[in-house]
Amino acid sequence: MVDAVSLSSSDGKGRVRVGMVGGGIGAFIGEVHRTAMRIDGRFDLVCGAFSSNPDRSRQSGAELGIAPSRAYPDYQTMIAAEQALPEDARMHAVVIVTPNDTHLPVSKAAIEAGFHVICDKPATRTLAEAIELRDVIEASDRHYLLTHTYLGYPLIWEAQARVARGDLGAVRRVVVQYPQDWLSEPIEQSDQKQAAWRTDPARSGPSGCFGDIGTHAFNLAETITGLKVTELCADLHTHVAGRRLEDDGAALLRFENGARGVLMASQISAGEENGLRIEVFGEKAGLSWRQEEPNTLWFMPLGEPYQRLRAGGGYLTDRTLAGFRTPAGHPEGYLEAFANLYAQFADSFLTGSGMDHLPGIEDGVRGMAFLDAALASSAAQSWTKIEH
Amino acid sequence: MVDAVSLSSSDGKGRVRVGMVGGGIGAFIGEVHRTAMRIDGRFDLVCGAFSSNPDRSRQSGAELGIAPSRAYPDYQTMIAAEQALPEDARMHAVVIVTPNDTHLPVSKAAIEAGFHVICDKPATRTLAEAIELRDVIEASDRHYLLTHTYLGYPLIWEAQARVARGDLGAVRRVVVQYPQDWLSEPIEQSDQKQAAWRTDPARSGPSGCFGDIGTHAFNLAETITGLKVTELCADLHTHVAGRRLEDDGAALLRFENGARGVLMASQISAGEENGLRIEVFGEKAGLSWRQEEPNTLWFMPLGEPYQRLRAGGGYLTDRTLAGFRTPAGHPEGYLEAFANLYAQFADSFLTGSGMDHLPGIEDGVRGMAFLDAALASSAAQSWTKIEH
Amino acid sequence: MVDAVSLSSSDGKGRVRVGMVGGGIGAFIGEVHRTAMRIDGRFDLVCGAFSSNPDRSRQSGAELGIAPSRAYPDYQTMIAAEQALPEDARMHAVVIVTPNDTHLPVSKAAIEAGFHVICDKPATRTLAEAIELRDVIEASDRHYLLTHTYLGYPLIWEAQARVARGDLGAVRRVVVQYPQDWLSEPIEQSDQKQAAWRTDPARSGPSGCFGDIGTHAFNLAETITGLKVTELCADLHTHVAGRRLEDDGAALLRFENGARGVLMASQISAGEENGLRIEVFGEKAGLSWRQEEPNTLWFMPLGEPYQRLRAGGGYLTDRTLAGFRTPAGHPEGYLEAFANLYAQFADSFLTGSGMDHLPGIEDGVRGMAFLDAALASSAAQSWTKIEH
Amino acid sequence: MVDAVSLSSSDGKGRVRVGMVGGGIGAFIGEVHRTAMRIDGRFDLVCGAFSSNPDRSRQSGAELGIAPSRAYPDYQTMIAAEQALPEDARMHAVVIVTPNDTHLPVSKAAIEAGFHVICDKPATRTLAEAIELRDVIEASDRHYLLTHTYLGYPLIWEAQARVARGDLGAVRRVVVQYPQDWLSEPIEQSDQKQAAWRTDPARSGPSGCFGDIGTHAFNLAETITGLKVTELCADLHTHVAGRRLEDDGAALLRFENGARGVLMASQISAGEENGLRIEVFGEKAGLSWRQEEPNTLWFMPLGEPYQRLRAGGGYLTDRTLAGFRTPAGHPEGYLEAFANLYAQFADSFLTGSGMDHLPGIEDGVRGMAFLDAALASSAAQSWTKIEH
Repeated sequence: MVDAVSLSSSDGKGRVRVGMVGGGIGAFIGEVHRTAMRIDGRFDLVCGAFSSNPDRSRQSGAELGIAPSRAYPDYQTMIAAEQALPEDARMHAVVIVTPNDTHLPVSKAAIEAGFHVICDKPATRTLAEAIELRDVIEASDRHYLLTHTYLGYPLIWEAQARVARGDLGAVRRVVVQYPQDWLSEPIEQSDQKQAAWRTDPARSGPSGCFGDIGTHAFNLAETITGLKVTELCADLHTHVAGRRLEDDGAALLRFENGARGVLMASQISAGEENGLRIEVFGEKAGLSWRQEEPNTLWFMPLGEPYQRLRAGGGYLTDRTLAGFRTPAGHPEGYLEAFANLYAQFADSFLTGSGMDHLPGIEDGVRGMAFLDAALASSAAQSWTKIEH
Repeated sequence: MVDAVSLSSSDGKGRVRVGMVGGGIGAFIGEVHRTAMRIDGRFDLVCGAFSSNPDRSRQSGAELGIAPSRAYPDYQTMIAAEQALPEDARMHAVVIVTPNDTHLPVSKAAIEAGFHVICDKPATRTLAEAIELRDVIEASDRHYLLTHTYLGYPLIWEAQARVARGDLGAVRRVVVQYPQDWLSEPIEQSDQKQAAWRTDPARSGPSGCFGDIGTHAFNLAETITGLKVTELCADLHTHVAGRRLEDDGAALLRFENGARGVLMASQISAGEENGLRIEVFGEKAGLSWRQEEPNTLWFMPLGEPYQRLRAGGGYLTDRTLAGFRTPAGHPEGYLEAFANLYAQFADSFLTGSGMDHLPGIEDGVRGMAFLDAALASSAAQSWTKIEH
Repeated sequence: MVDAVSLSSSDGKGRVRVGMVGGGIGAFIGEVHRTAMRIDGRFDLVCGAFSSNPDRSRQSGAELGIAPSRAYPDYQTMIAAEQALPEDARMHAVVIVTPNDTHLPVSKAAIEAGFHVICDKPATRTLAEAIELRDVIEASDRHYLLTHTYLGYPLIWEAQARVARGDLGAVRRVVVQYPQDWLSEPIEQSDQKQAAWRTDPARSGPSGCFGDIGTHAFNLAETITGLKVTELCADLHTHVAGRRLEDDGAALLRFENGARGVLMASQISAGEENGLRIEVFGEKAGLSWRQEEPNTLWFMPLGEPYQRLRAGGGYLTDRTLAGFRTPAGHPEGYLEAFANLYAQFADSFLTGSGMDHLPGIEDGVRGMAFLDAALASSAAQSWTKIEH
Repeated sequence: MVDAVSLSSSDGKGRVRVGMVGGGIGAFIGEVHRTAMRIDGRFDLVCGAFSSNPDRSRQSGAELGIAPSRAYPDYQTMIAAEQALPEDARMHAVVIVTPNDTHLPVSKAAIEAGFHVICDKPATRTLAEAIELRDVIEASDRHYLLTHTYLGYPLIWEAQARVARGDLGAVRRVVVQYPQDWLSEPIEQSDQKQAAWRTDPARSGPSGCFGDIGTHAFNLAETITGLKVTELCADLHTHVAGRRLEDDGAALLRFENGARGVLMASQISAGEENGLRIEVFGEKAGLSWRQEEPNTLWFMPLGEPYQRLRAGGGYLTDRTLAGFRTPAGHPEGYLEAFANLYAQFADSFLTGSGMDHLPGIEDGVRGMAFLDAALASSAAQSWTKIEH
């Protein structure tokens, strides 16, 4: 009842109409996507297949203010029915917020039916699937957004811009980590839904915390530095007895330019909430950012005082400044970062401009290639190249 | 075009319909209110008098997706026209986001016409006006929300709850400050619109930074401690040549229980963005909070380690926990705080529950009484009682 | 046994010989002074009147490695006996680390007998005494160091230098505070020795926390800004029942150039350890420093990123850099700050250079004038000028 | 002239007499050792071989207040001459502060001649040497202190104690890093003396930054957890062209109980000063400490607020509290940590109590075993066991 995303404009001109797969009432990430859409008011949620249970899908649709005829029992029906609607009524894009195992089939079906796709991370469960999806997307002219949330923080764009324009000189060293503590205990055994599917290989794929959050860390490192990781040596480990997927891991990284790095992801680090953070050190300066205090970016030029760059500071690049809704000192957070991805999707969709600056299938493929290499490396206890 | 707030549900059941006075495209605080309404998706913006210029009001309405017939030339017309609509179509509440001088007349007219009111702070320009408005509100059965933003931060509720349940013992000392730097230079002379009206006595009232932000500090101090300030000694000062209202000030405070305090507000503190912060010290423990890092509340029990309370922590009170949309470690900020005020208004409006926990006209009266006393004290250079 | 300060050089050339009044074994501040002397190894403790109890003085002397003949029963005997020694054996300077009430008589007697004086803060108990002592010192050619510890932190010199060279433009606003919590409970009633004399007007003088720590805050504000406070309005209060001197207070300040300020000192702020901190805001930039993290100084230029200046940074002024014993990243603290005062005293004493940059009797007079005005202001509840 | 360490007591009873090898005037670490000795006043520097150049040794001795007859031309002469002195005059212990290559021969000679040894880290250049030295020490009854500075910080003892008493449950994950930036540029090529010997394999041994600072990180990890690292996979790299030893490196760690870890050491991390820090995560709680803010230790119990443990807090263990010279809120730093090692050596030496809690040759052997394994692992690009 309280959750609708749509907006009132009668003709829909200048607005994006979306249908959602997954995200029934009570689902965490589905509601995050809807909130992100609402923040800037540029999306209409017009239909959905909100649950694998048709009754619950219908009920969720009703609570979300969706016309009953457009609360579909499954994604196949949704795609077929929306295709049959007149062009100025049918949805433009499908938003996918289901567990990982359905990301590939839904994405493919949507693209092939001519819809754009906004998919929660990861793109697929495996590298082979990601490559398959890439082929499908590249053969189409449809937009595909992979919601790597943390790329929505404007100070990440600032970090990326500063590396790109040479403020750091050549990058030498990267430390990226993503510690959490919510799986410190075997809560999947007591029916905690989030924990249950994330520790189940059938639904999550072959990796636990590396797949769930390590890919965020990897993506951040490659995005900010503009460098590819070429090989790694990983050690994945399951600390909690009875758990089927790793809940902790670390990897040594080598980048294409010779830079070195360390990547850590952990879900058993007591006291850590959602502690994604990254440090990049170059010949001339370093950079440091923490997701839990996202409105500050440290810039550390060699031999000079640290500079504390702040959200809204007039000295930031134009793209960064455009990412804030409020003046300096008014903290923006996770939901605004998410909304930035949606806002930029709307821009690129409505204006026909490119999506190069948004995370897409290439990020998905790299993430899966990273995961593949990490699993292989950890199993073989050896350095492993990242292909693709 | 990108800014509509309304939502699609056909009957509007369970939703709040609002009309906005002020807040034309480009206005800062108007867009903040709209974003706050959108975040949780419970409000429909159905009409407005967005500008004192009828053409611009109409144009803003169009961009906001408002039906042309409901983009009114002025608030009087809006109120009369909406009264004439059927009950299930007319707006429920008026949102007032104009400069301070119109807060009283619009609020009064709306209440007297049977509408609820959500008003940007301050309630009025003077204490006499605030008392006049209180009489009007008390004589009605309408809801009146004064959007003291910072009372929307859940960790402020936690601070308030901990003081109330005695975790600190008797409060002894309060330090509250609100420093900014945006008026360090005479930018009102170069046509900066925000600066121009805020430094103009005709539009702002008789106080500059104490009225603009000192009242936030005062409100926070009284709200968290649950104690009234009974007298103060203030020193208001204008540092920038040619400015007509004070841009800096401080006051010594005495609370009803004998506690002492200091309140500072400044708009010429170079380097400070929006640095509202408060410390409360009691017999048994202290508390400390900063708006720029709103997801952390320090609790400092005497002789024990400091405790760093975090947004989302399971040890917080229920009301606090209900104020977060995401798990611990996903920062929420200013817009979510604002949205919390709207969400609680919607709750209380739709369920008929009380509004005691929301800032209302009593906060407005206290704010004006504080301002009155501060101006008198500073002029007379003496201690002055706060009446009302 | 473990505490001697002296050093082995046979002739004492290039070293300072001191006698100590007070500071028997177990005394807090006496041992701090001795440690400060030892850190750089330039002082010999050659004699002392360590306690008002002659037996305990002798015993302390023995434990400190003092020759029995030079462990005197009282300061008068010490001064007379040392005067009778050959010039190359007698002490050069008297270090005074007794409670406040004896600071004047010992200082006077020492100066008049031709000895230099190093005195723990405050200089005297009252303004009249401070002026009396100033006359004595000015009529002599003896060195007088008042150990305002916090002026020994090199980053304070940096702050002072940056204000002096105009980096901030004209100073507009100063906030200085010194909160502690150690007197939150009536520990003086349970025979805590430190608490007992500090809350006893006969030994401390007419002020409690303002005299004990407020003067540090005042001194820091005047030293860094290079500006005199001309008037103030203070509110001193005793929160703990039965206590005879104020344990908390605050004052509004006006500086000679029109700048405004707030000074706070409190010993009942639960959770605060030794939280001296100061912020100075000018037309062009602000500065911020905290004693508990003394190796960082924030410099905040208007409209630019904050700069985090760090102990040891090559960009600091020469005098600042000379104050560190270790490279950047090796934290130095309170004892090193104290040692800096002693090291600079040794420099000025041994080289005959001036002492203008060290705290002396003028600081003592200003501190007492501040205290006098604060007590008068608080009693009269009015603004009061600071004379002298 | 200003640097003597000795103290005046005529008989030396209850004091430790030391001779120093290396540490001529101007040497960084030699002066740090002397300052550490002076802080608590329990050591007399009675002789030394301060330089490999006999003239400079003599001159340094003179400036340090050493009798000319005891400023020796080399360590062999010093040991022989001191052995010939009466027992109540001769030195008790040799302090070794030369570059790494002489640590073994001087230590051996001193022990074999019956002197105690205090040696700057590392114990030797290689593992074989360390084992050789261990045999010598174990065959004697002499004390051997290896000054692993960071083990002198009292909050490290607190961390160790809390792990030992089970506050964290079983340790699962350790992240320890030691980043610096002082070798970001090839300063060894411009005759910077510290850089020159540290990047020279002949004087430093086969490792650069891992040997110099990585061993500190390793030592801290094993000391706090009480667990041995059993195998590692390291990647050492030289970023600066022309440098002969690695200036950056990282290693994955496995501990004897199955815990995992990451160790990083770097001297090319722009902006980092001396950023040693460690995080330890267990089943029930985590711990975090940073050397640059050494007076704070974070304790993070799962599901509860973080606790900010502070130097001097009454809730700390007794051993921790005994390590502070001043009350809470008076920051102590690197020099005091160093002094704590000396103070505990004096205690154990003078009272005959054990030295189990002080870093000794076992730490040296482990450090070398770690280094050996890291070099082998990096060369072979494979996981490698740590033996010994």
